[in-house]
Amino acid sequence: MVLGALPAAVRVYEVSPRDGLQNETAIISTAQKAALIERLVASGLRDIEVTSFVRPRWIPQLADAAELVALLPQLPDVNYWGLVPNVVGLERALQSGMRGVGTVLSASETHNKKNLNRTVRESLAGLEELIPVAKDEGMRVRAYISTVFGCPYEGHVAPEATLALAERLLAAGCDELVLGDTVGMANPVQVEQIISMLVDRGIAIDALAVHFHDTRGTALANALVALQCGITTFDASVAGLGGCPYAPGAAGNLASEDLVQMFEAMGVRTGVHLDRLADAGVYAEEVLGRELAGRYHQFHAGSVRRAVRSHTA
Amino acid sequence: MVLGALPAAVRVYEVSPRDGLQNETAIISTAQKAALIERLVASGLRDIEVTSFVRPRWIPQLADAAELVALLPQLPDVNYWGLVPNVVGLERALQSGMRGVGTVLSASETHNKKNLNRTVRESLAGLEELIPVAKDEGMRVRAYISTVFGCPYEGHVAPEATLALAERLLAAGCDELVLGDTVGMANPVQVEQIISMLVDRGIAIDALAVHFHDTRGTALANALVALQCGITTFDASVAGLGGCPYAPGAAGNLASEDLVQMFEAMGVRTGVHLDRLADAGVYAEEVLGRELAGRYHQFHAGSVRRAVRSHTA
Repeated sequence: MVLGALPAAVRVYEVSPRDGLQNETAIISTAQKAALIERLVASGLRDIEVTSFVRPRWIPQLADAAELVALLPQLPDVNYWGLVPNVVGLERALQSGMRGVGTVLSASETHNKKNLNRTVRESLAGLEELIPVAKDEGMRVRAYISTVFGCPYEGHVAPEATLALAERLLAAGCDELVLGDTVGMANPVQVEQIISMLVDRGIAIDALAVHFHDTRGTALANALVALQCGITTFDASVAGLGGCPYAPGAAGNLASEDLVQMFEAMGVRTGVHLDRLADAGVYAEEVLGRELAGRYHQFHAGSVRRAVRSHTA
Repeated sequence: MVLGALPAAVRVYEVSPRDGLQNETAIISTAQKAALIERLVASGLRDIEVTSFVRPRWIPQLADAAELVALLPQLPDVNYWGLVPNVVGLERALQSGMRGVGTVLSASETHNKKNLNRTVRESLAGLEELIPVAKDEGMRVRAYISTVFGCPYEGHVAPEATLALAERLLAAGCDELVLGDTVGMANPVQVEQIISMLVDRGIAIDALAVHFHDTRGTALANALVALQCGITTFDASVAGLGGCPYAPGAAGNLASEDLVQMFEAMGVRTGVHLDRLADAGVYAEEVLGRELAGRYHQFHAGSVRRAVRSHTA
């Protein structure tokens, strides 16, 4: 048995409205964002990171966080998540009625400094204050650990750095740790090594999620290995929406359709309706006005265009 | 151990000059093809399928087969391969000095009929005549079995159809069977199932190669599972050159850079120099005049463009 026993079902955590749009140059309207999120919900996605509660001037693409959240359909089994950089952002997320928040720091010192303008120690201290506040408010909290598999500035990142952060964040009350392959440097051997190391050192596999980027085409292969390791939460972005800030022109997040298509074909349930998800990707492409990079998306969008042509011919 | 013991080294069989160019609408000059192949050789690739000896009017892109072969650098450890549809093509390949030929038939009846205008039985009978002739001439022979993992017309293809063809082709003297995922329908579970079934029924793992397409983004994940199964010959096309004739706009062959980058990062030797290979991909893009779909290619080409800009600024 090469693949071994695989989880029967996984949870797809959709990041396109936040991680995707924040890396797009185009700014789309609040109504268009809401319409995209409605389509994502309609496809069966149940965890969607919809925006970031940062200062509006930091990320103009997401300056409409509160207005957007007010437009979203409220369904009992749908969890909307917002990224929060600090307690001010957390307060705004609470006022908007969010029940889940994401926080972020890096395993690599240089990336943390460039991305967050603080040392890793300062970021960790901030999160150790923020997480208990969020938990007291009854929120679910995930923490992105960026550059786990490599740093665009430092190259190799010691797995021990990730372990140390993981232990501290879980001790602070964090529900879920997201192993981020920020610039798509991970390879399958490394994915197995890092997940195994964390689990061997006492981190529960259910507390781990993976967030792969497809910069070098490896995202789905890495996701497969993570699945083999027992990971059941996978971040993805419809149509691969979003790019790589470190490599203009390169692919960004793992495309949700690619993940769903492969896992469902393997018999691993995702709860997501592939055609509806792909239609959401076509909608995203229309409103952004550029061709998106997801493989299944391009296959599907080509079919849609041919159907439109034959219908109008 | 999730990944298990992996082969220490693999052989990358480059298909861009034949499978890639035959699916491109642009026709590039013989000198440009030779220049591309020279770059592929310089990157360390040692098996390159350079053309097809079909009737020139069938595939105008490859009508210059003999002229092209005459231009190629002859190195003792480089193997050039040509596709041959029949004994007439085999004769032309022999006259051109080819030492390796590829032949093709499909596991699915409908695809074979549409692609080759013959029944599978007729194709097999033809190959059972052709292969011994080629072997008598001292050539190496590989046989592509198309649609092993699914057919664009019939959908599911019985693994037993592949097994039956494999046994007959090996009995006829074929050196290598290429399991073709012609339209990118394979998934990792299926890849393991089919390879295991063939090996369990007595086919040597060393007689098998895999040829994945990235139509749905799964090519590299499927290659990873094939590697775990012990496969050591992988077909790929630089920059993902070539498309999918069944889905315009979709990705085509697995990109050679993506395969080499991932395998080398995992410690699996390919003998290929990634940067030189990526430069060959940039050259292919220049002569074809369209952006190519390989992920590492896009990452690399973006870097090249930025370097050129900063150099000329």
